[in-house]
Amino acid sequence: MTKLKWGMIGGGEGSQIGPAHRLGAQADGLFEFVAGALDHRPDVGRDYAQRLGIASDRAYGDWQEMLAGEKSRDDRIDLVTVATPNATHFEITKAFLEAGFHVLCEKPMTMTVEEGEEIVRVAEKTGKLCAVNYAYSAYPMVRQARAMVAAGEIGKVRLIVTNFSHGHHGDATDADNPRVRWRYDPAMAGTSGQFADCGIHAMHMASFICNDEVETLSADFASTIPSRVLEDDAMVNFRMSGGTVGRLWTSSVAIGRQHGFDIQVFGETGGLKWQSEQPNQLNYTLVGGRTQIIEKGEGGLHADATRLSRVAIAHPEGFPLAVANIYCDLADAIRGETRNGLPRATDGLRSMAAVHAAVGSAKNNGAWVDARPPMFR
Amino acid sequence: MTKLKWGMIGGGEGSQIGPAHRLGAQADGLFEFVAGALDHRPDVGRDYAQRLGIASDRAYGDWQEMLAGEKSRDDRIDLVTVATPNATHFEITKAFLEAGFHVLCEKPMTMTVEEGEEIVRVAEKTGKLCAVNYAYSAYPMVRQARAMVAAGEIGKVRLIVTNFSHGHHGDATDADNPRVRWRYDPAMAGTSGQFADCGIHAMHMASFICNDEVETLSADFASTIPSRVLEDDAMVNFRMSGGTVGRLWTSSVAIGRQHGFDIQVFGETGGLKWQSEQPNQLNYTLVGGRTQIIEKGEGGLHADATRLSRVAIAHPEGFPLAVANIYCDLADAIRGETRNGLPRATDGLRSMAAVHAAVGSAKNNGAWVDARPPMFR
Amino acid sequence: MTKLKWGMIGGGEGSQIGPAHRLGAQADGLFEFVAGALDHRPDVGRDYAQRLGIASDRAYGDWQEMLAGEKSRDDRIDLVTVATPNATHFEITKAFLEAGFHVLCEKPMTMTVEEGEEIVRVAEKTGKLCAVNYAYSAYPMVRQARAMVAAGEIGKVRLIVTNFSHGHHGDATDADNPRVRWRYDPAMAGTSGQFADCGIHAMHMASFICNDEVETLSADFASTIPSRVLEDDAMVNFRMSGGTVGRLWTSSVAIGRQHGFDIQVFGETGGLKWQSEQPNQLNYTLVGGRTQIIEKGEGGLHADATRLSRVAIAHPEGFPLAVANIYCDLADAIRGETRNGLPRATDGLRSMAAVHAAVGSAKNNGAWVDARPPMFR
Amino acid sequence: MTKLKWGMIGGGEGSQIGPAHRLGAQADGLFEFVAGALDHRPDVGRDYAQRLGIASDRAYGDWQEMLAGEKSRDDRIDLVTVATPNATHFEITKAFLEAGFHVLCEKPMTMTVEEGEEIVRVAEKTGKLCAVNYAYSAYPMVRQARAMVAAGEIGKVRLIVTNFSHGHHGDATDADNPRVRWRYDPAMAGTSGQFADCGIHAMHMASFICNDEVETLSADFASTIPSRVLEDDAMVNFRMSGGTVGRLWTSSVAIGRQHGFDIQVFGETGGLKWQSEQPNQLNYTLVGGRTQIIEKGEGGLHADATRLSRVAIAHPEGFPLAVANIYCDLADAIRGETRNGLPRATDGLRSMAAVHAAVGSAKNNGAWVDARPPMFR
Repeated sequence: MTKLKWGMIGGGEGSQIGPAHRLGAQADGLFEFVAGALDHRPDVGRDYAQRLGIASDRAYGDWQEMLAGEKSRDDRIDLVTVATPNATHFEITKAFLEAGFHVLCEKPMTMTVEEGEEIVRVAEKTGKLCAVNYAYSAYPMVRQARAMVAAGEIGKVRLIVTNFSHGHHGDATDADNPRVRWRYDPAMAGTSGQFADCGIHAMHMASFICNDEVETLSADFASTIPSRVLEDDAMVNFRMSGGTVGRLWTSSVAIGRQHGFDIQVFGETGGLKWQSEQPNQLNYTLVGGRTQIIEKGEGGLHADATRLSRVAIAHPEGFPLAVANIYCDLADAIRGETRNGLPRATDGLRSMAAVHAAVGSAKNNGAWVDARPPMFR
Repeated sequence: MTKLKWGMIGGGEGSQIGPAHRLGAQADGLFEFVAGALDHRPDVGRDYAQRLGIASDRAYGDWQEMLAGEKSRDDRIDLVTVATPNATHFEITKAFLEAGFHVLCEKPMTMTVEEGEEIVRVAEKTGKLCAVNYAYSAYPMVRQARAMVAAGEIGKVRLIVTNFSHGHHGDATDADNPRVRWRYDPAMAGTSGQFADCGIHAMHMASFICNDEVETLSADFASTIPSRVLEDDAMVNFRMSGGTVGRLWTSSVAIGRQHGFDIQVFGETGGLKWQSEQPNQLNYTLVGGRTQIIEKGEGGLHADATRLSRVAIAHPEGFPLAVANIYCDLADAIRGETRNGLPRATDGLRSMAAVHAAVGSAKNNGAWVDARPPMFR
Repeated sequence: MTKLKWGMIGGGEGSQIGPAHRLGAQADGLFEFVAGALDHRPDVGRDYAQRLGIASDRAYGDWQEMLAGEKSRDDRIDLVTVATPNATHFEITKAFLEAGFHVLCEKPMTMTVEEGEEIVRVAEKTGKLCAVNYAYSAYPMVRQARAMVAAGEIGKVRLIVTNFSHGHHGDATDADNPRVRWRYDPAMAGTSGQFADCGIHAMHMASFICNDEVETLSADFASTIPSRVLEDDAMVNFRMSGGTVGRLWTSSVAIGRQHGFDIQVFGETGGLKWQSEQPNQLNYTLVGGRTQIIEKGEGGLHADATRLSRVAIAHPEGFPLAVANIYCDLADAIRGETRNGLPRATDGLRSMAAVHAAVGSAKNNGAWVDARPPMFR
Repeated sequence: MTKLKWGMIGGGEGSQIGPAHRLGAQADGLFEFVAGALDHRPDVGRDYAQRLGIASDRAYGDWQEMLAGEKSRDDRIDLVTVATPNATHFEITKAFLEAGFHVLCEKPMTMTVEEGEEIVRVAEKTGKLCAVNYAYSAYPMVRQARAMVAAGEIGKVRLIVTNFSHGHHGDATDADNPRVRWRYDPAMAGTSGQFADCGIHAMHMASFICNDEVETLSADFASTIPSRVLEDDAMVNFRMSGGTVGRLWTSSVAIGRQHGFDIQVFGETGGLKWQSEQPNQLNYTLVGGRTQIIEKGEGGLHADATRLSRVAIAHPEGFPLAVANIYCDLADAIRGETRNGLPRATDGLRSMAAVHAAVGSAKNNGAWVDARPPMFR
């Protein structure tokens, strides 16, 4: 199987997201890294790309140059990853889709609901893939959970409880740290802080595992560090279209939590629990029964869980290989296989709509609001 | 030290709460069980009391008989425990307080806020103790958490996140089981189901550990099993008088959770985490530091945590001895020592006010409401 | 049911073991504490006994006085607990058995194998109970494990792996602390340190759960703190009479372990795992299947596990109530019911024989030796 | 930085080890996969190599052809990985070293001690790297543990307790499964079963973390499934050259354990605990202090732990990236940087000597024997 050709925008030297994508794209030998515009400083980006093995004529100075260059080639890239600052995702993603490239966009896909709807329309019109990097959804045991729900193994879902709460922004004296500050500053982060940054991962996960969409929500936001304009802690109650009740807590001041992203799904006949810090296990309990620990790699898992695992039972696989699983799904999708697991532009749009709705609800004392994008109402 | 004399109303043969209180009262040799009206069937109760070693003249047929009998004795009981059906707590507790007895009342102390205020007034007027059995608050490591917060070891508290969620009522086909059904029937349970049953333990715990009171709240109730009139799942957001943000989830349909009562407290300089299923450990993290596991029985704990532990480090102590700790505090309080840890009538009242407020908020789409009893506004 | 009459030797003011036994005997209302010789200083012991509610004529100055006093009474005690220094267990236990009293002896039952055999003979001759306080064996989930093995739920047992390792004696600078020092001094502790102190709990547990006896063993002892004459760390490999392979590690210098007593039992069709720091769960895995978590209090447990639990599922019960379970079994046994779970003199003897064998093996470079008492060979 | 050129022998289609190495070598963009002899069937191997992107002239039919082909090229590979059946490791590794190639050999490096000494001599003589894939030693938190021990953060090491025990060969009815059977057949596996397969990982880890060598050992082997000639369960006690006491348990019949490889290291001033199923945490306890949880990715870790981690704190990294870390160290070593962490031929040799010693000891009733290779005595 020939490798697919892959390029990247952003993710320059010193970034964390760059190596994560390069590892993800190349870990399974599915993509060849052939083009890049890696830095907002053209020369720096060109130099770094070449040091990473990119030919000089595909080591671009900016995304516009890369778009022009790749469009004109016969051996143009099959996929571009957009890992630039959030505010630029919309413009770049739209341009590449329109030029006929498949795109993997970092989250958030856009800054507004309107932009999100535009991307969905462009992706549909062009017939190109627009995936969004909700990488947690590609852990094998998350796929197992989704497949179990779809197969009715916990019955109709009544309740979903999820959180994504850490304490790494809990130090008020760290307020001048630019790596932290921008996230709570509306000028740079938009209308939401912690919910837009982490909460939407949890909200996507709820929809993903239940294969259902959030319909209405009510939000309570707090800036527990008073100097922050945007929220550093949020609780969002929601209802899904099938009637499922949802509860989502997200925080960045939960000191002692490292990366507390976990989800519990409760149905009519059973419950599931998954935790991102122990991603290779899934707890499963049938009503009236004992909790069973399902292990990644055990026999008899659903196909998606087995396909996305590389090493034997109880050999842990971690976050970088969840990103690699997104690329596995992308390779399949580019080759025309149907994968319903890959997060798409509609997921990115729904996240934006949820952020917009939560911000509005929180400002209005938690009033229940429609969380759906206008185009899906 | 002479043992104190103790009597009990309710807790007859086959009940679970009766043995728990008898073990709690007698485990440390502090109370002598000398009187009881243990069953709503007078003969059955008298017989059972005598089989438990109560003298025949103090094996009463009902609480009125016991009240009259004990009032007339020189060696009257020092303390009576009220462990009867919820709707009778108010009447019995009030009568014994007014007759000059100290009372330990099972939760809920009353069915309404008005009754709760009445009990507070009577306790104050008579100068008698009215304790409420929030036994979880008497675990050594909960006392440690409270003392650490009071000592400033996590700084000013910003956020408290707690839940009390199990899955033991998750079976819709079990609806005819009378042990389950009454809890969701307004005729028997009052205005709230799961929040009044379990949620108020978590809400009391939040106040207890932070030494602060809930001021306002917003509630989202759900009957995930549709045949239920009262909620089997609830999310309550709240604010405490000191500005602390609170999040409380309670559920009885969380299949796979056995007894998921836990609490996380996040302050300006640190965080704490305690879980009722592993009650002998407390996780403590200073901002920027590593999580430390504090063990019951280790050297240097706060006085209350050391006092309320009986066996060496890492020898677990469980729920029955948390109940016994309530009796330890009662014995001290009866003898005139000041214990600020003992849950009192004001705590029972605040719980009722919170239930009342949450029910009102839930009916009003989660509107924020005052959660305080009128007498404390 | 009338309470049984109970007395205690040792366990005076300030000891930890005294309150543990008093709680254990009285927690379930089965025994009345009526006699005691609680301290090696007669006046101190008499005074303390009276403060605990013992009548003055049964507050004895020493065990001989107590033996004489109780023998002469019509309402003599039904059971005496011997909780004196180890070297005195043999003499006191023997004397009370011969005088017709049931005895619960703290471990070790004796200091030598010969004494152990003598106690077994006396108990048999007199027909009186001689129980030994291997309290860990009375945890509900340990009883569940034993019953599961007996019922064939893991098949024939192939392998048992257990350890009892803590780090509380890991500080070499603490060597002058008399609470620690005596345990490694042959003049006070006998021929073995950590193995005799903690290891025999693990060895008893192996026999108890498998209902099998240790036949041969090979030991490796180490004094990792060089000033110690006796071992502070030991590994013992053994074989049981049914061919089961055993591995037992015990240590007091395992810094970071609080009370690491746990046991894993592996059979032809399944495995079990129990840990003393989380005593209310038992892990169960059928070959080729998923690990299931069995919870104390769940439906369908074996009778002994259900009988010895007091509170609902997932309400933890701890070590003091395991001791109370020994007293539950004692009350039953005194009343003539057959309980095969109660640890008896033969268990105390087998422990001594194992200590003797391990010491001999360790001195002889780990040679395999017979671990059985001569009288059982 | 130009990529290094890499080739592989073995690891053909359907093997698990092939993808693990290819991912490990390429995950961080350090090696380019340019040559291979991937299957014992020449045509199959050539075809598969080309499907993986190897040029046809470097898709070899067997290792001899590959050796000849690569030797003759100017752009010869920098490193070859040997992932063939165990009995062939010696011959291939020796040949490539002698031809001037760096080698990464799967474990066991050889089948005998004599072969192991030969490899050590050849590696020394040629000055070429011969690394052995003890990949567990490359987890960031294992490197942290090693660095902490070296820095004296737990004082002089007294005791090391490790095990590598799973239950995946616990089904006696699975005896005909060829994937399992060969491991216990001396004709195919050599003189040792489970100890040689898994135990030596644990023994290497003990030496690795303590930076010390095993000097003497005593072994107890058991074939708990009687049809097996070689052991499926083993306990090895050992002493290291610095006096450290060691205890190592390994089993393949521990039903319920998935991959129970963990290690505890106890020193004069502290203890460490690491578990392979939760590889991103390390527990650390100072004598008299609380257990602290050290997280991969936290600030202030030792350099090696920080260098070998790719994603932020609490984003798990798993086994495939531990393999990748071996390749990171290899790339550095090939480029001339000194890495003392990379497992070398001397480690492979010491493992063989330990296997030889343990087999001899077990046959001789656990006699203590010298565990060192003759050339290091």
